[in-house]
Amino acid sequence: MTYCVGLKLDRGIVMAADTRTNAGLDNVATFKKLHVWEKRGDRVICMMAAGNLAVTQSVVSLLSERLKSEDPGRPTLHTVDTMFQAARLVGSAVRDVRAIDGEALAANSESFSVTFLLGGQIKGEAPRLFQIYSAGNFIEASADTPFLQIGEHKYGKPILDRVTQADMRLGQAAKLVLLSFNSTLRSNLSVGMPIDMLLYNTDSFSAHRQTRIREDDPYFADLSHMWSEKLRDAVAEIPDFEI
Amino acid sequence: MTYCVGLKLDRGIVMAADTRTNAGLDNVATFKKLHVWEKRGDRVICMMAAGNLAVTQSVVSLLSERLKSEDPGRPTLHTVDTMFQAARLVGSAVRDVRAIDGEALAANSESFSVTFLLGGQIKGEAPRLFQIYSAGNFIEASADTPFLQIGEHKYGKPILDRVTQADMRLGQAAKLVLLSFNSTLRSNLSVGMPIDMLLYNTDSFSAHRQTRIREDDPYFADLSHMWSEKLRDAVAEIPDFEI
Repeated sequence: MTYCVGLKLDRGIVMAADTRTNAGLDNVATFKKLHVWEKRGDRVICMMAAGNLAVTQSVVSLLSERLKSEDPGRPTLHTVDTMFQAARLVGSAVRDVRAIDGEALAANSESFSVTFLLGGQIKGEAPRLFQIYSAGNFIEASADTPFLQIGEHKYGKPILDRVTQADMRLGQAAKLVLLSFNSTLRSNLSVGMPIDMLLYNTDSFSAHRQTRIREDDPYFADLSHMWSEKLRDAVAEIPDFEI
Repeated sequence: MTYCVGLKLDRGIVMAADTRTNAGLDNVATFKKLHVWEKRGDRVICMMAAGNLAVTQSVVSLLSERLKSEDPGRPTLHTVDTMFQAARLVGSAVRDVRAIDGEALAANSESFSVTFLLGGQIKGEAPRLFQIYSAGNFIEASADTPFLQIGEHKYGKPILDRVTQADMRLGQAAKLVLLSFNSTLRSNLSVGMPIDMLLYNTDSFSAHRQTRIREDDPYFADLSHMWSEKLRDAVAEIPDFEI
């Protein structure tokens, strides 16, 4: 499984993805699921993937190869004018991969199940965040729902539901995302460190605030420890239930 | 959907179930999913159900009807000697219902998917807690895993994972269970109030500590409010993340 979260905030976008892939419990590996296409000064596009790894990697490869296409009639992630158009490119790449591999996967009873989060900003519009489905269709995050999750999303949702606010600073939002990961990692084996993260500041058109948080990261270790303590304290401070 | 939790602690057992059933979002109803068989001074057996309501109700009805059976060769929940035997009775009732309804359900492409939590104590042994599957087989909670959940279990699992301890008082455990419900209710529409709860004290052989917690319950309202505040405070007290 996988866990990825994207937040669209007033000050920018936070994208985070774990790196565990597993084809059964005895076949666990680390793969990057967060991909960034940057044209500094003009656009930053970040995509995170959940689902069949062969399919998601093909989609990423198709999108990257097409950047080099010389056909001016064929839009690419480097040339589209809006994030909506970028989401359509991703959707169409998903459909292309299905056209190539779908039948063989079906014949093998394997699922063509993928989901993507696509966030970023293209000069001329505000940052936007999309979730793209296996069918190539998609939804967009709005002010009402500033975060989207894919993969193993349930364990880490309650804390996001409670605390996320569109006017958070990115560093605050990143902390919240890491708390959401912390709960997920604790309760589900199929999600694993390290965590890749991008903090994108509105109108920066630069993807330089990217990092990989490893198991031994001192901030993450402190956060996990403090969070456990504070949760236990919070529970203890609430009066016990009596019938 | 449904959410039920059972905890097996040193001092007894806590069982809690929501009451929402839905066949689609526009067909929501309230049904009791927590059932208690009590023979005061001798045994308390509590069962909670998730899954196809027609099936789970049939299982409960079969078990209850069989209590009146005059056949001394046929064990019932009132006569079995151990909770293990009680779990086998439930499993065999599940198989009986499948024999009656399974084919028709399959013909209608409906799922025969049910899960039960069965907790309680029969004189002569310590309290025990079981989870029974659609196939009628089951597992038992041990000291390593003092809680079992069925239904929509993911949202409410992180807090149980972190705080549950076998030596908790029942009132503490009940509070923890309600916090787990609180997170689930917030993040998932298919789980709904009221919550039915049984606190069973080891060796009491009495099910008198039972209650239904309604939406307007002042304790639950306070708990929800305090918990939200404390979580937000806890998040705020952790330093923000910086790249």
